[in-house]
Amino acid sequence: MTSDRPLAFGGNHLDRSANRRGDADWLAQSLAAAETHFVHINGDRTIVVDGRLHTGRNGQAREHYLLGIDAGGGAWFACHSDAAENLRDLRGLAVEGLLPAHELALLAQARSIVHWHERHGFCANCGQPTAVKDAGYRRHCPSCSVDHFPRTDPVVIMTVRNGDSILLGRQTSWQVGVYSTLAGFVEPGETIEEAAGREVLEESGIRTHAYRYVASQPWPFPSSLMIGLIGEALDREIRIDTRELEDARWFSRSEVEDMLNGTHENALRAPPPMALANRLMRLAFQPS
Amino acid sequence: MTSDRPLAFGGNHLDRSANRRGDADWLAQSLAAAETHFVHINGDRTIVVDGRLHTGRNGQAREHYLLGIDAGGGAWFACHSDAAENLRDLRGLAVEGLLPAHELALLAQARSIVHWHERHGFCANCGQPTAVKDAGYRRHCPSCSVDHFPRTDPVVIMTVRNGDSILLGRQTSWQVGVYSTLAGFVEPGETIEEAAGREVLEESGIRTHAYRYVASQPWPFPSSLMIGLIGEALDREIRIDTRELEDARWFSRSEVEDMLNGTHENALRAPPPMALANRLMRLAFQPS
Repeated sequence: MTSDRPLAFGGNHLDRSANRRGDADWLAQSLAAAETHFVHINGDRTIVVDGRLHTGRNGQAREHYLLGIDAGGGAWFACHSDAAENLRDLRGLAVEGLLPAHELALLAQARSIVHWHERHGFCANCGQPTAVKDAGYRRHCPSCSVDHFPRTDPVVIMTVRNGDSILLGRQTSWQVGVYSTLAGFVEPGETIEEAAGREVLEESGIRTHAYRYVASQPWPFPSSLMIGLIGEALDREIRIDTRELEDARWFSRSEVEDMLNGTHENALRAPPPMALANRLMRLAFQPS
Repeated sequence: MTSDRPLAFGGNHLDRSANRRGDADWLAQSLAAAETHFVHINGDRTIVVDGRLHTGRNGQAREHYLLGIDAGGGAWFACHSDAAENLRDLRGLAVEGLLPAHELALLAQARSIVHWHERHGFCANCGQPTAVKDAGYRRHCPSCSVDHFPRTDPVVIMTVRNGDSILLGRQTSWQVGVYSTLAGFVEPGETIEEAAGREVLEESGIRTHAYRYVASQPWPFPSSLMIGLIGEALDREIRIDTRELEDARWFSRSEVEDMLNGTHENALRAPPPMALANRLMRLAFQPS
């Protein structure tokens, strides 16, 4: 599936170099090397100076996690930062398109892995402190010997079609006027398609089928993998789950085009082009 | 994507009833009700008596996790079991096809969620004990107030094509003669397609592109979501990562057919039809 406008957070150029992660000598040399880059993560934010990603050394960081090696052979590491200045949040950077796509992608990798370490200093199995291993891709518990690995949480996000209209909803917390595709986490013991059908039924009361896969997108808030689908509705009458959605309704093709183009008469809007939801709205009316 | 032979662990008939998970009164009534079913999980195993899934009450279980509600209105819960008799492992049950598909599917759900609770009694953020919430779909830390949710780990599994042959490998731990599609966990900050390309490159040295999605399958050992793809190779020369694979090579269409049919002259075999890998091998030679 191709598209004119790229999705944010994909397109990482680094060689992740998993074979280097256990090589303590190589890691020590790389951390000391002048050409090594450091990606600073403070919550959802990183450091941008004069419009460029800051990748200088971080004297305060206690742990560094390997992102990979660039085409020039330079290593890139992620680290937590307590910086208070020059911070820019990753969503804003993605919408704005200030940084190259491949830098946004390694920021996504960095943000997900830094967040995981910040929340996983202890062993979920026994409660004792754990230690970083494999350059950040494992934490080991010396007390009970259990290994823990970074999370990636699959999320289904789907446009549901009924004739010449699609189902969109909005949450109370969203910006005024924004409507988007429904979405939700895949649960244990579900296929992707089953999760999509369950989420749409739960949130809108609409039964669906015939899902097809469109594209995927890393979504580092904190560690989702968005799995984009287009499916077909079997019902028309919406029953909203008001705990999940503030509103949901059917939108005609022309209304969706106006939302995508920013010309909707009531100022309703789609998510920005960097988001998979935008692509799913644009592709919903093309033949499958 | 349809197929004559269903994949194991999909096809759950239960209504997961997420809206009931926070309803303490309903949960207490359901746990006491005569028509409620209990799925007993001991590691990868459950209890099967006279060829039927045992769903009787478990007096020893301290926690019960809601699986959902069946078409007759009966609730189903999963629980840990210390039973030592009549145990059957879920892989064997899936290969054998003894139980109905929808029972295998709820066993997958039960096994993933029971395993998650067994390994997550403590808060990864602060090390203190956590408590079950939402009928098993959340654990809450009363010390630091962080919520933890069950894991579902996305895994890419892919057939790679080169002309009229496909790339298959085998791990030392597998049964003698079995070759299968390559696979690996999606990492933070990757799309599905990027993860597929990275895994194939890491394990075999083959560059790939043009992946298309085929199907997904829950794989409850302990909590994977298998995402099946077919892609195209850009290279032919294999360099095996011997830490991951014992062997990898190109297999011709006729050799793959013999492996699928159990008629290979050297007794090489495909994974069983219940596994997504089998479907990916069968579909690899069909036009996309």
